Amino acid sequence: MVNTAIVGCNGKMGCFVAQAVQSREDCNVLFGVDAFGESNYNFDVFKTFDEATETPDVIIDFSNPAALDGMLSYAVDNKVPCVICTTGFSKDQIAKIEDAAKTIPVFYSGNMSLGINLLIELSKEAAKILGNQFDIEIVEKHHNLKLDAPSGTALMIADGISEQLDEDPQYVYDRHSYRRKRSKNEIGIHSVRGGTIVGEHEVIFAGHDEVVTISHQAQSKEVFAVGAVNAAVFLKDQKAGMYNMGNLLSQKMN
Amino acid sequence: MVNTAIVGCNGKMGCFVAQAVQSREDCNVLFGVDAFGESNYNFDVFKTFDEATETPDVIIDFSNPAALDGMLSYAVDNKVPCVICTTGFSKDQIAKIEDAAKTIPVFYSGNMSLGINLLIELSKEAAKILGNQFDIEIVEKHHNLKLDAPSGTALMIADGISEQLDEDPQYVYDRHSYRRKRSKNEIGIHSVRGGTIVGEHEVIFAGHDEVVTISHQAQSKEVFAVGAVNAAVFLKDQKAGMYNMGNLLSQKMN
Amino acid sequence: MVNTAIVGCNGKMGCFVAQAVQSREDCNVLFGVDAFGESNYNFDVFKTFDEATETPDVIIDFSNPAALDGMLSYAVDNKVPCVICTTGFSKDQIAKIEDAAKTIPVFYSGNMSLGINLLIELSKEAAKILGNQFDIEIVEKHHNLKLDAPSGTALMIADGISEQLDEDPQYVYDRHSYRRKRSKNEIGIHSVRGGTIVGEHEVIFAGHDEVVTISHQAQSKEVFAVGAVNAAVFLKDQKAGMYNMGNLLSQKMN
Amino acid sequence: MVNTAIVGCNGKMGCFVAQAVQSREDCNVLFGVDAFGESNYNFDVFKTFDEATETPDVIIDFSNPAALDGMLSYAVDNKVPCVICTTGFSKDQIAKIEDAAKTIPVFYSGNMSLGINLLIELSKEAAKILGNQFDIEIVEKHHNLKLDAPSGTALMIADGISEQLDEDPQYVYDRHSYRRKRSKNEIGIHSVRGGTIVGEHEVIFAGHDEVVTISHQAQSKEVFAVGAVNAAVFLKDQKAGMYNMGNLLSQKMN
Repeated sequence: MVNTAIVGCNGKMGCFVAQAVQSREDCNVLFGVDAFGESNYNFDVFKTFDEATETPDVIIDFSNPAALDGMLSYAVDNKVPCVICTTGFSKDQIAKIEDAAKTIPVFYSGNMSLGINLLIELSKEAAKILGNQFDIEIVEKHHNLKLDAPSGTALMIADGISEQLDEDPQYVYDRHSYRRKRSKNEIGIHSVRGGTIVGEHEVIFAGHDEVVTISHQAQSKEVFAVGAVNAAVFLKDQKAGMYNMGNLLSQKMN
Repeated sequence: MVNTAIVGCNGKMGCFVAQAVQSREDCNVLFGVDAFGESNYNFDVFKTFDEATETPDVIIDFSNPAALDGMLSYAVDNKVPCVICTTGFSKDQIAKIEDAAKTIPVFYSGNMSLGINLLIELSKEAAKILGNQFDIEIVEKHHNLKLDAPSGTALMIADGISEQLDEDPQYVYDRHSYRRKRSKNEIGIHSVRGGTIVGEHEVIFAGHDEVVTISHQAQSKEVFAVGAVNAAVFLKDQKAGMYNMGNLLSQKMN
Repeated sequence: MVNTAIVGCNGKMGCFVAQAVQSREDCNVLFGVDAFGESNYNFDVFKTFDEATETPDVIIDFSNPAALDGMLSYAVDNKVPCVICTTGFSKDQIAKIEDAAKTIPVFYSGNMSLGINLLIELSKEAAKILGNQFDIEIVEKHHNLKLDAPSGTALMIADGISEQLDEDPQYVYDRHSYRRKRSKNEIGIHSVRGGTIVGEHEVIFAGHDEVVTISHQAQSKEVFAVGAVNAAVFLKDQKAGMYNMGNLLSQKMN
Repeated sequence: MVNTAIVGCNGKMGCFVAQAVQSREDCNVLFGVDAFGESNYNFDVFKTFDEATETPDVIIDFSNPAALDGMLSYAVDNKVPCVICTTGFSKDQIAKIEDAAKTIPVFYSGNMSLGINLLIELSKEAAKILGNQFDIEIVEKHHNLKLDAPSGTALMIADGISEQLDEDPQYVYDRHSYRRKRSKNEIGIHSVRGGTIVGEHEVIFAGHDEVVTISHQAQSKEVFAVGAVNAAVFLKDQKAGMYNMGNLLSQKMN
């Protein structure tokens, strides 16, 4: 049984983490920490770690950068591994995280979805094998309120694929403005926007008379909470150091 | 039984037409016409219509613009309906075709695939119903040798949809160069290029928590031959005039 | 502005309806009715219609069969059109609904999603045109807790398609138990089950070297609430009688 | 430059192999061998290996079991690696192949498509990682003349996945005949049949609010020829022994 403490448990993502933990038989919430301190849960919610009387096996943090210091000092003092899912840290804060990782295991990943990270790993392997003979294209779909294009995840995929290719490919976002054949050395990246689509990524390997496609579809942001809990279970048994989803996947693959 | 004459029967598309005719029980090839005059078929192939001794029910032309005059004069003289699938006519030639259509039924369509034309009709209906509440995007996929983007068919689809909308939409080909929410009044058009993909078109209607998608996938250029034969069977019973795939579909729908 | 009353507004679907109404500029919630009577909304929630002081333009009911009598008598007395989304009525209750429809407009549909009903209409048209030459198959995907297979919606689609075909097709659910070619006269129906998939339906028309696919994907049950509000706006201007999503779509198509 | 000899070069698949070799810059056809002996190619075609005057680097065999003995004795005598794509061998013949592999490298694989074999490898890795938390389903699509269901390839995929799971899963082909939740321990296999679909395989991993899909689509049987040429280039530098597509992929992955 992995006893977790959830930082930011009253926020939307924290609430998903609490659900994800409680839906597993091998996990438990020992307590929550939230600036608001109120609990609608069947576990205690403290305003700060100072109120905690028991020590969790892992901390899962889905809160905001302001909570970092309090959490890290508690974690280091009590030797508790930390899964940090919060984003938007300053460079100084990231340095603090890396410093803490000298003493305790810290899990810190750009995208907490197990599926997305697997998509990236599988795409890299496919690129290693098909890269020279097949053309590679990425189509991503998101809701109509998303400001940026392509998605950060699409770029993570493209960058992962690029590492596997002999030559650095060019990312191509628009083909309508010129008239020419596709160059061997490009990756087309297409950003579909519409409705309330949560997030879909499709990596297409098109060769001579055959096409291999690897795709991921997210139905809700809960997938990040589920990934965070997977990370917590993984992190409990690690040594001090920085970890990410790639490490988790490697361990599972071997 | 519809007795056809195939113009350009020794070319690649003419060969597909011959196969498509002969695979149907309600059709037959009476003779072929081809500048080369040789026959590897179980029907006669003439260099010109002058050699023909029997009159076909319909002519299917998949040849080149140079054959137009000979065919039209034979067709008008003998009152034979014509399915014209050849492309690249001059304005004068198109005027001649329209002139002939005063006397005989002429079928002339930008894309002979039944499936693609149905895709366009269904997309128009979907746009009529969902257009104000759903976002519309088009993804088309073609082989890596295709010079133009988007495909002519993607534009046919987008234009068909636009007719159904209250406001004229803007076609958007690239989203990576700016940072903003999708405007209500745009249609994103995405051109995937890779391998030997013959042709795929996908029309996406993305709304609040639901997505409707209509797609067409071509496996080979034979689909155009199959469509031409469908057109021939349709045309046999029509009055003089110009017809296209939209007319054929309307008749089938009612 | 369409002023609505929402019956069952404190339930999960009622809550979605309230959100859907309030997200539109042409609609408004006048009051809610719910056996529990409490309001967390910015509108009044009454235990019964007796407490209502203003008359709504349309009633949207997403509650349970027990609420039917009170709602219908209020609606008939006050000439208020009713969108009934509740399911599980007895035959007697359905007779009562049909009786009320002699006096007021009543909207009553098996599936309130605009997208699903459009999918059915488009599939019927495609079947009318392609039915004799193309093979038709349906793939539906739902979460791993769903008890029945195929989904009721998949059967609605198959039944709609069947009406368009010359011969009644046979529904085929399993091909592994025999060794034979596909018969012309069958519709394969495939039920994928996994994870938390909310609901996907894909209708495949496979012909000679081309495939047309029409698909619908639901992201959440909110789509039924959105459809109910569409129905309310439609129903406000109708005469007495029974209406369903097919009527709403026909009106939009013409 | 890899100099190949193509056995069965006048057959349909042999013709595809000749095209695939000649489309690559690093390969060449030294001569063909075909019982018919005629050549429409720009290389010699011999009736038997006895007529050959030069020794190829690799033999690619896409002929029929009757040609095996002549080929193997030539290959063993001249130390030429063999890619054997012919199917339908007797047990005795397979023993002969394995015997030859003691002296020369022999490539022999159930499915020569690079893409399909990659699909299997990726699906196995995904199963290793997601298998315990995600539900796995396979959808395959083939033309309406295919007699068997599911496809042999679908079973190869399912068997590959099963090896990775803690418990042996049950393959489920029909869900309409009972009313129950999906068991954790099953793989649904769905066989869509229609039109002239060459072959599509889709492996679905459905988890909590996310779905990963790996799919392969074949446009023609040429993919097997392309795979055979890849195998030839790979085999040229190997030691004596039996090899298959899994070995080729492993080498490329490392």
